[in-house]
Amino acid sequence: MEDCVFCKIARGEFPSARVYEDQKCLAILDINPVTPGHTLVMPRAHYATLAETPTELVQALAGLFGRVSEAVVKAVSAEGFNLFAANGRCAGQVIDHLHFHIVPRHPNDGVFPGWTASSYAEGEMEKLRAQISRQL
Amino acid sequence: MEDCVFCKIARGEFPSARVYEDQKCLAILDINPVTPGHTLVMPRAHYATLAETPTELVQALAGLFGRVSEAVVKAVSAEGFNLFAANGRCAGQVIDHLHFHIVPRHPNDGVFPGWTASSYAEGEMEKLRAQISRQL
Repeated sequence: MEDCVFCKIARGEFPSARVYEDQKCLAILDINPVTPGHTLVMPRAHYATLAETPTELVQALAGLFGRVSEAVVKAVSAEGFNLFAANGRCAGQVIDHLHFHIVPRHPNDGVFPGWTASSYAEGEMEKLRAQISRQL
Repeated sequence: MEDCVFCKIARGEFPSARVYEDQKCLAILDINPVTPGHTLVMPRAHYATLAETPTELVQALAGLFGRVSEAVVKAVSAEGFNLFAANGRCAGQVIDHLHFHIVPRHPNDGVFPGWTASSYAEGEMEKLRAQISRQL
């Protein structure tokens, strides 16, 4: 897409620090890293969300998760990492071109301090399970 | 593995709310949801981390991301979702059996309030890029 910054990066019209590329996929450093080495794995082609992206392309990207995360973790001597993707504004998506964050993690780095987990009222879980599996 | 709760779920020795299953993969409701419909996509086989998991199996799981997230989003009338995985204790991994969280999101739900992004000093980004791509 004309105005998409990740499309511009994919076309080479906008600079980026590429750590990996192939015919379909790119991995670049995030210019505003949560921790140093924070990398984005994305398709060259423009798809706004996971739902719009062909399954084979999602699988091509996923085929890089292990390799790229291992390389990032080694390069910055991290002890772990998070894989993160946001779909939709309310989920924190800023750029509407599918991308997966790989964020290297270190003990007590304060990133993703955790979430507030709740529990289901009786019967609610089975009701939801049935609702979701009906869609599948 | 004998003592792994997700292995017990995969073997049917421990109850779970399964929204999807096939020969290799399972999708179940998280019993302590961040938001209702919070679902975990995992392999039946035990692999502690992404790095240990065969690429084909990661791709089989990723092939479900679109389908499962769409079903979850519809079932709970969400406006988006996050995909999240933790590798390593310092990254928040609690159960050492690979799993991907799909967390449905709603406007202003307060989940994942965002992260603190930084920037690279001059030259640091290119140095890191070279370090990471050397590992790939």
